[in-house]
Amino acid sequence: MPTAEPEHRHPREVPLQGALAALADPVRLTLVRELAASADWERSCGSFDVPVRKAALSHHFSVLREAGLIEQRINGARRVNRLRRAEFDERFPGLLALVLADVESGVGADA
Amino acid sequence: MPTAEPEHRHPREVPLQGALAALADPVRLTLVRELAASADWERSCGSFDVPVRKAALSHHFSVLREAGLIEQRINGARRVNRLRRAEFDERFPGLLALVLADVESGVGADA
Repeated sequence: MPTAEPEHRHPREVPLQGALAALADPVRLTLVRELAASADWERSCGSFDVPVRKAALSHHFSVLREAGLIEQRINGARRVNRLRRAEFDERFPGLLALVLADVESGVGADA
Repeated sequence: MPTAEPEHRHPREVPLQGALAALADPVRLTLVRELAASADWERSCGSFDVPVRKAALSHHFSVLREAGLIEQRINGARRVNRLRRAEFDERFPGLLALVLADVESGVGADA
């Protein structure tokens, strides 16, 4: 059960390089895209279908918090998430839209 | 003196993740920004003010070619560069503009 509130960084404090690096990873792209398709605070950290173990997943969420992409809060025994869409859009206009639109591009994701 | 023409990838063949990873690096961001401020084919590989040795610089240029960000050709004893601005913009609308505009944002680039 999570006990301490996780630390966050507001998108306005995030350097461009950190935002790009956070999104340049297939697991984190999946997390962001699934969050974009879900209501705020609906998704717990364990609810995502990604092929990584718990410690790695925890690291990915930490990178997303540091990049200003997500906000987390504790809700009973779960840690729940929301995409910081509006704040992130304000800091990096168009970047999230590009990432979310690219799902269907058909260009190999293996390179 | 360079002898073989370098290999390139057209932006339409570049996965989003590759484009983001290519740009999520301070040296490569500098190269892209300096190219954006220069005329096509004006800049040789040795003309950039970046704090890396020749082998590392060669790797950075290779990543930029693979990400569809630059085109290189041999011009006598030099390898010269151009930013593939139009083609890259078509594949990833707004991404280069975001990167080029961020220079003055004032958010620390050290994170």
